[in-house]
Amino acid sequence: VHQARVPADFVLHFVLPLVEKWADSAKGVDEVKGKVAELDAPLPAAAWFRAQTPPSRLARRCQVWHKGGVKSLTEQLWFEVPNRRGFVNITETIETLVRKSEIQEGLCLVNAMHITASVFINDAEDGLLHDYEVWLEKLAPHAPTSQYQHNRTGEDNADAHMKRQIMGREVVVAITKGKLDFGPWEQIFYGEFDGRRRKRVLVKIIGE
Amino acid sequence: VHQARVPADFVLHFVLPLVEKWADSAKGVDEVKGKVAELDAPLPAAAWFRAQTPPSRLARRCQVWHKGGVKSLTEQLWFEVPNRRGFVNITETIETLVRKSEIQEGLCLVNAMHITASVFINDAEDGLLHDYEVWLEKLAPHAPTSQYQHNRTGEDNADAHMKRQIMGREVVVAITKGKLDFGPWEQIFYGEFDGRRRKRVLVKIIGE
Amino acid sequence: VHQARVPADFVLHFVLPLVEKWADSAKGVDEVKGKVAELDAPLPAAAWFRAQTPPSRLARRCQVWHKGGVKSLTEQLWFEVPNRRGFVNITETIETLVRKSEIQEGLCLVNAMHITASVFINDAEDGLLHDYEVWLEKLAPHAPTSQYQHNRTGEDNADAHMKRQIMGREVVVAITKGKLDFGPWEQIFYGEFDGRRRKRVLVKIIGE
Repeated sequence: VHQARVPADFVLHFVLPLVEKWADSAKGVDEVKGKVAELDAPLPAAAWFRAQTPPSRLARRCQVWHKGGVKSLTEQLWFEVPNRRGFVNITETIETLVRKSEIQEGLCLVNAMHITASVFINDAEDGLLHDYEVWLEKLAPHAPTSQYQHNRTGEDNADAHMKRQIMGREVVVAITKGKLDFGPWEQIFYGEFDGRRRKRVLVKIIGE
Repeated sequence: VHQARVPADFVLHFVLPLVEKWADSAKGVDEVKGKVAELDAPLPAAAWFRAQTPPSRLARRCQVWHKGGVKSLTEQLWFEVPNRRGFVNITETIETLVRKSEIQEGLCLVNAMHITASVFINDAEDGLLHDYEVWLEKLAPHAPTSQYQHNRTGEDNADAHMKRQIMGREVVVAITKGKLDFGPWEQIFYGEFDGRRRKRVLVKIIGE
Repeated sequence: VHQARVPADFVLHFVLPLVEKWADSAKGVDEVKGKVAELDAPLPAAAWFRAQTPPSRLARRCQVWHKGGVKSLTEQLWFEVPNRRGFVNITETIETLVRKSEIQEGLCLVNAMHITASVFINDAEDGLLHDYEVWLEKLAPHAPTSQYQHNRTGEDNADAHMKRQIMGREVVVAITKGKLDFGPWEQIFYGEFDGRRRKRVLVKIIGE
């Protein structure tokens, strides 16, 4: 099987420095886009759930606020999953942002900004991600699209609005001693149910 | 179809000033009740999902706290959906409360205070709200009520406890630069699955 | 029916003082373990959903931070549900921690640290807990285990990963005037879907 999963350290060691260098210039954005395109090789149909666009393009510089006794960081992550559905492990990106915030004790909110996508915490195991796909399709089938009134608006994504409710819009993660306070297998995922276009995730870290 | 949906600015420009004027007097509460009753015209059965009791009666004055470096606002919204099930768009009410809190960077928690109701974020599109109703009824049917042990207590709302788990109890929304930090289509809904009585939603805003 | 439910005040008046006395010594931990074991009497199969291991073992001392204007408390609760599935009411334990934090206005995050378990808020009614069990098994059946690719890894808990998504990973509860700001019937539950081993819940309270 073709392995198009983007290595986690690609974001840390490649995309991030690039963006930091050129963040506000068109050239910077194009450079990132170019590198990202290299990874978009065609994939066998059965592997859709492993194939992901790079986990994030840190399109805006973080805003770190420190006013009164409260510190906060705000960031948007961008995604363009090449298929209708897919899962992207964004754990390392979030860890990077927590470090950047320098917040020691606080809460980290990560939420989909689109209503046909999810952010959830579960296991980074390919078989399980496949099982989620099959299971969600059983609970909220895409076809026939005519079964949903929402699709009369010209959309074909009513099922994506259902799937997102099961998987959830957001997670709130504790930050303890400067780190995400995670159990042994917790990983943060972006779940896309109506992809092939650019969509965003919001990260808000607040604390002290 | 009879349009009983309460215009969003009704809350902003009518209920809110009224409540601010008379908040602690019986007269104020009655006045709001009276105006609210005018909107409760009978509805065709098929339109249940569009017909809503007014989105909120701000029954108590907001409590704004500012102690140490942390600012917070607490508010309860009241609902009395005239049917067993219904959805109420509460986005503008929450926006009003965020402005009132004067919090610039923080988190806004909105949760159902009842265990047969939900607060969730999705699309303000009538077809979709109808689809949710059909879909939830398929995943957790109301009838036969005898299929649930919970209903042996004399209740008939076990299905409502299930539906609420799928749609969720709460949302946490980031506040950035004094506003709800929303994606393009995000709207906050109160989801009622066992209505025809007064129920509450809690809003807690915290930050700086 | 054998009543193995641990009385809520067991945690408050027995486990907590013990832990406070010996928290960092092996003797303290063993003493708590011993008392806990006494409650693990065998249970009739039909009563699985009532039978619970003690709701928590406060294995680590709380960390209360007060830096800048933000106060926080971090705690881990330990569970070992003797069956594959079960529900544990942890409301009183969380209330104790809120009191201990001395936070007046804030947010309380309670999340499962394991990806086959949930924390959720619903009704403390045995019939309903039974209904949840039946309903979750219908939406995400355990058997045949071969229907899930995840189980090819040697696990048999793919269904538990599904059930946890429906019931949710976490709850965020407002703290107002030093107390959990609850509706009339809200109770916090730990939901176990792959038990018979030690697992944790994280409590993070933040505010002022």
